[in-house]
Amino acid sequence: MRQILKVFLFVVNLTVCSSSYIYRRISPYNPNLSQELPDSVHYETLFFDQQVDHFGFYNKDTFKHRYLVADQFWNHNGGPIFFYTGNEGDITWFCNNTGFMWDIANEFKALLVFAEHRYYGSSIPYGPSVFKDSKKLNYLTSEQALADFAVLVKYLKDTMPGATNSSVIAFGGSYGGMLAAWFRIKYSGIVDGALAASAPIWQFQGLTPCSAFLNVTTNTFSSTSRTCANNIRRSWKTIDEITVTAEGRRHVSKTFRLCKDLTSTADVTIFKDWLSNIWVNLAMVDYPYPANFLEPLPAWPIKVACSYLLDDLTELSLIDGLYKAVNVYFNSTGNVKCLNTSQQATGSLGDAGWDYQACTEMVMPACADTNSMFEPSEWNFTAYSEGCYKQFKVKPREYWIIEQYNGKNIKDTGNIIFSNGLYDPWSSGGVMQSLTNTMISIQIPYGAHHLDLRFANAHDTSSVRAARTQEKNIIRLWLTGNSLPQN
Amino acid sequence: MRQILKVFLFVVNLTVCSSSYIYRRISPYNPNLSQELPDSVHYETLFFDQQVDHFGFYNKDTFKHRYLVADQFWNHNGGPIFFYTGNEGDITWFCNNTGFMWDIANEFKALLVFAEHRYYGSSIPYGPSVFKDSKKLNYLTSEQALADFAVLVKYLKDTMPGATNSSVIAFGGSYGGMLAAWFRIKYSGIVDGALAASAPIWQFQGLTPCSAFLNVTTNTFSSTSRTCANNIRRSWKTIDEITVTAEGRRHVSKTFRLCKDLTSTADVTIFKDWLSNIWVNLAMVDYPYPANFLEPLPAWPIKVACSYLLDDLTELSLIDGLYKAVNVYFNSTGNVKCLNTSQQATGSLGDAGWDYQACTEMVMPACADTNSMFEPSEWNFTAYSEGCYKQFKVKPREYWIIEQYNGKNIKDTGNIIFSNGLYDPWSSGGVMQSLTNTMISIQIPYGAHHLDLRFANAHDTSSVRAARTQEKNIIRLWLTGNSLPQN
Repeated sequence: MRQILKVFLFVVNLTVCSSSYIYRRISPYNPNLSQELPDSVHYETLFFDQQVDHFGFYNKDTFKHRYLVADQFWNHNGGPIFFYTGNEGDITWFCNNTGFMWDIANEFKALLVFAEHRYYGSSIPYGPSVFKDSKKLNYLTSEQALADFAVLVKYLKDTMPGATNSSVIAFGGSYGGMLAAWFRIKYSGIVDGALAASAPIWQFQGLTPCSAFLNVTTNTFSSTSRTCANNIRRSWKTIDEITVTAEGRRHVSKTFRLCKDLTSTADVTIFKDWLSNIWVNLAMVDYPYPANFLEPLPAWPIKVACSYLLDDLTELSLIDGLYKAVNVYFNSTGNVKCLNTSQQATGSLGDAGWDYQACTEMVMPACADTNSMFEPSEWNFTAYSEGCYKQFKVKPREYWIIEQYNGKNIKDTGNIIFSNGLYDPWSSGGVMQSLTNTMISIQIPYGAHHLDLRFANAHDTSSVRAARTQEKNIIRLWLTGNSLPQN
Repeated sequence: MRQILKVFLFVVNLTVCSSSYIYRRISPYNPNLSQELPDSVHYETLFFDQQVDHFGFYNKDTFKHRYLVADQFWNHNGGPIFFYTGNEGDITWFCNNTGFMWDIANEFKALLVFAEHRYYGSSIPYGPSVFKDSKKLNYLTSEQALADFAVLVKYLKDTMPGATNSSVIAFGGSYGGMLAAWFRIKYSGIVDGALAASAPIWQFQGLTPCSAFLNVTTNTFSSTSRTCANNIRRSWKTIDEITVTAEGRRHVSKTFRLCKDLTSTADVTIFKDWLSNIWVNLAMVDYPYPANFLEPLPAWPIKVACSYLLDDLTELSLIDGLYKAVNVYFNSTGNVKCLNTSQQATGSLGDAGWDYQACTEMVMPACADTNSMFEPSEWNFTAYSEGCYKQFKVKPREYWIIEQYNGKNIKDTGNIIFSNGLYDPWSSGGVMQSLTNTMISIQIPYGAHHLDLRFANAHDTSSVRAARTQEKNIIRLWLTGNSLPQN
């Protein structure tokens, strides 16, 4: 039972973009982020009445769908629409973190639109209590979200003078990147092309081995320091051995400054899951400059964290090294008094929404094999499904996303860029090979989770600079209607 | 109010394939049709458990989805799957009437699959009483039907040895043709190409003038006999003038052998709507040989009907000519004792299902302008919507189909043949111009409603023979993966 529970918790936590962290970043109590934004980032906040149920007519309810519009760069006479397909969080946060769109808007004379995903941010049908009502949660699906986007695009084109004949390019990162790709796949008449950054559209049963995700994470650590990865691989057994005794558990709790001491084997399991998630998150945000994406972090945070795990450490010094490494992730500011291993389980809105999606459509199998630095674990869909039923009274359909979005047979769609950073664990489920001349894979060595979508930075690697240039060139080809480059 | 009611009734009746007639054909009381079928037409009847709601997880109900399989021609080692996307009626009827698939199955070594449309035939979630329950009717949409087809194709490929890598070509006529096209548009990874015969995918608000449908009908009559069309054009005023008096109404009732006499102006309106529908239906089934599609009819039935309307007729002789023309449609066998003007309004299952679809997604505006031989009438969406609310407690969304299926911007999809007979009223909403080299319009002069999908016949016109040859050549290109013909 232990293993099963672990796998279930593990996967729910290993969801795209760990939205619990997203929410902490965007809360009004932490306004740091917006202060860092360039002056160009200003937009209008608007709302549109959407059908709660696009796919049925019995429920006639509507909700207020929030979207942000920036038209200061736009050529009002048919300039393109750059449309961000919002993912599992407050849209203002994605708006502020998708610097690439802001950086290129003027060059393309583009209208920027950032559309929120239903059931997140300020676009929650029936209000926040909906997360306790599985009947009203029923309309939280990717298909409904894409329909919101399609209806909104038509509305904008019908009502904004000059937009009628505008091309539409979808942009998105992570789950938002999946939506950008699916928006093009399902609504090819509405969307002319899509930049799907770090979009693990193949992280589903039968398309990608369940071990791939943690193996990429392992490689990211190994390529920074093989010793570091080996120390993490050793650490699980070390933790188990030390925490056999009450004294050992106290030692670990004290070393890690845990808010609540480990007192049982179950606590230790949660502790190890929490550690696993930190390593994954570090790989996702291993950016070349100090950044504030999931947590405020130094440049190349894995290198910094691994600096405490470079030697062939003894048991106790390994525990100490792990703590210092973890502290890079959680406490680079030095302001955190104690570390909380149940942090991933807190129930913010974003969490509740994504947990539900992971329990219905977004079933992304995860396991660990012996190639990885993580503890071996198996994927158990039955147990996963039972956990979902317990939590939401729904059962996931493990093949539905493949049936709905064409699985690996997407080459006929055309005009999608799939960009992936090779450091990013989610690249495991990404499209890592160009499928045709217009379904293009762009790979970014040393790149973490949708690095290319961030604002240009003086410390950007040459790889991400080149990726952005290529992305712009391809988008330009789409907009001019040429299928071949001019030179 | 009169005009409004008329338009509402009119459009509901003018739905694709007038399913009330379909149902009379397939009832067990009229087994003529199957007796005419070639020996090759034998198939297995199977059922598959489908989710009632593919797009939500709260409702976990399933229903038995019927499909027919014929594998006697199939190359079991990867031969293609020809998949009929069932429309608004019993699938066995479409199976028996889509002779083209049977005629070419052996040549292509194809597996034939005919999948029923949910809420029709034997595939009715919650059983026949569902048509009185708007909550349970909620899952009767084209999107849900396409999802049924997608899930079924995956199931067949996963479970039939030899089918895993089979190409899938969708076939459909009328609303089934719309579904075939949309299946390719929305599930391009599952469907390699589609033959959408007589598929009015653009018969929606803003894409086609509401008058186009009846103008094509008028042209079909005019091209057989200009005098005939003119007599029909004159007839509405003549009927109005004669039926002003009780004696006139009795005369008309007697001449037409109506089962129930006309006794009021409202009755006369219904009578004229009934006449209009007969002219439309005659244009749909104006086949070059005796056929049994909506009714048992002689070859070129419009020519036969018009033979009674060729002269410059006086008022009373016009009434007499109209009756004789109508009798060609309803009573070529001579077995019908009296004619029933409320026949279109009878509530068979097929009717109820299609009426609901016409009141939700399938809003096809119809009106008559002065170019047509029909009485002028306007399109009034508000009144239409109110009628729908009264009947089903739902309101149609007039732009939803355009938003969902990309409107006229479908050229990026590729691999669809849109075939249309130029005699067919529904060609008004069809794709009548090739959009690219792989989105091809095939037009069939003197062709009625999906004539090309019928069994080859010794009396076929050279146009329909050529169309079928072209269709086969294109399908062969799709299957060999070539985008260019070899010679």
